[in-house]
Amino acid sequence: MLSEFELIARYFTRPMAAGSRTALGVGDDCALLTPSTGMHLAISSDMLVEGRHFFAGADPFMLGHKCLAVNLSDLAAMGAQPIAFTLALALPEARAEWLEPFARGMLELADRHGCELIGGDTTKGPLTISITVFGEVPLHHALRRSAAKNGDDIWISGSLGDARLALAGYRDELKLDEAQQNLAAQRMHQPTPRVELGQALRDIARAAIDISDGLAGDLGHILQQSGVGATLDVDALPPGPALQQQPSELQRCFTLSGGDDYEICFTASPKQRAAIEAAALACHTPVTRIGSIESQPGLRLQDAAGQPLDLALTSFDHFTS
Amino acid sequence: MLSEFELIARYFTRPMAAGSRTALGVGDDCALLTPSTGMHLAISSDMLVEGRHFFAGADPFMLGHKCLAVNLSDLAAMGAQPIAFTLALALPEARAEWLEPFARGMLELADRHGCELIGGDTTKGPLTISITVFGEVPLHHALRRSAAKNGDDIWISGSLGDARLALAGYRDELKLDEAQQNLAAQRMHQPTPRVELGQALRDIARAAIDISDGLAGDLGHILQQSGVGATLDVDALPPGPALQQQPSELQRCFTLSGGDDYEICFTASPKQRAAIEAAALACHTPVTRIGSIESQPGLRLQDAAGQPLDLALTSFDHFTS
Repeated sequence: MLSEFELIARYFTRPMAAGSRTALGVGDDCALLTPSTGMHLAISSDMLVEGRHFFAGADPFMLGHKCLAVNLSDLAAMGAQPIAFTLALALPEARAEWLEPFARGMLELADRHGCELIGGDTTKGPLTISITVFGEVPLHHALRRSAAKNGDDIWISGSLGDARLALAGYRDELKLDEAQQNLAAQRMHQPTPRVELGQALRDIARAAIDISDGLAGDLGHILQQSGVGATLDVDALPPGPALQQQPSELQRCFTLSGGDDYEICFTASPKQRAAIEAAALACHTPVTRIGSIESQPGLRLQDAAGQPLDLALTSFDHFTS
Repeated sequence: MLSEFELIARYFTRPMAAGSRTALGVGDDCALLTPSTGMHLAISSDMLVEGRHFFAGADPFMLGHKCLAVNLSDLAAMGAQPIAFTLALALPEARAEWLEPFARGMLELADRHGCELIGGDTTKGPLTISITVFGEVPLHHALRRSAAKNGDDIWISGSLGDARLALAGYRDELKLDEAQQNLAAQRMHQPTPRVELGQALRDIARAAIDISDGLAGDLGHILQQSGVGATLDVDALPPGPALQQQPSELQRCFTLSGGDDYEICFTASPKQRAAIEAAALACHTPVTRIGSIESQPGLRLQDAAGQPLDLALTSFDHFTS
């Protein structure tokens, strides 16, 4: 059995990168970060619990990736550039066969975004992964939930609903063949945080939020905090590659309120359409225009023909579902 | 049943304080913090798990205090001034009877140190509390584990061993009467982070560490990272008010390796003795000189008469004990 200190040393301590922002990393009472002048520090925490956010026995490499990805997604939705993160980890036991791939999955994604592991905590307990991530965004340029304006376009990055489809397959709510299940599962286990797009949107978009609990519910936070309403073109919502093969009613439902998507929903003036398309192209991240911000409060849904739709809107909530 | 969002709103969202460093707090994808020029940001994460760090059914007010206190103790050991924290909380259920006193215990301590709750996460799961705390320390003035020098005095704040004594009572390792148990338990449940002292020691002390896993083990980190050794005067170690009433052998054992103390162990040049006494007095925090740093590696123990002692040194380790 590895001790706590051996475990930290073996899998989570790495040589400090050249050009590092950290004056002191893993191995003291605190890490020391040197923030850049003229920048806000954007900070987000997400906790993932076995049996709640991922299945018992989940692949540790993919889990390591996902835990950091969902945190990077929060930075992306603010337009912040990732710089560092801390990891607090409760583990039933310290097994190298689990820790090695878990650390690798997490640190590979971290390296891709120049995001250093600067500290944390490990303890015995039910498998729980709690990450706090730090990013930088120029003063007054962060994308906030409260900035949407009447007349704004509503956009979404990437595609929606495949993670929810995979979950339906695992839960036997739907019968999926193996190829479909695997295709859908990829988006569930390996979400791509839209870090580059978020930064590219800084001076183009107005409000933004990352989609973790379902588009309808998360867009609702923008509407509420901006004091506006919206109409969504439900048939414009981009289904993921696996969900595209399903009936249109299921596509509508899972794109609208599936959850676990980690795409960015943002609003921008219609004058910015060309700039947004260019930014998306430069970031190799597709974006789709899916509706409009309106002054009338509430969220309205319409189909491709402009006819009103009445879908039961449900956003995932950890304490009522 | 409260929803996740109602829960956050009711217990953890507060009006932003005057003079706040946060440009944006709870309720967006990220919190935004505005660091001060010329300062390092000191960051520490601690995770507390029910049944491991605290008993099932622990008093929620005291638990809220303790969870933040152990994090503030890490800032204190770096000489950093607390500014903000995030809270990730897994809960079996959202009960107001538990959440209200938990939030109160945590936020009362936070207010005492001007430390704002700026974000976090709540989810269903086995009771787990993960806090990341942020402080500021002037560039190059942080107290580090690696800074001890041959000839330094070794000091400890406050007193040691009462938390370990309380644990021994709860576990029936020892028979304590109710008054003794309650006295000891106070230090276990309501540790006082030495925040003011840590800042006062910035330009006086050299190395520092907070004592969470037992003095001998934690001092060992200073020795290892500074490339030095030490001799400790075991009979100079200050026992807590409850432990003082116990036999001297138990006092030696629990002060040396009890754990859960959250005092600061620090080293300083003998020339700084008067300055340290003055800082301690100004902070209303007693300090005791307990040994010396030496060039010979390893930790040596001696009694009041200067005779070598051979105590089994054990530091608490979450994965081997």
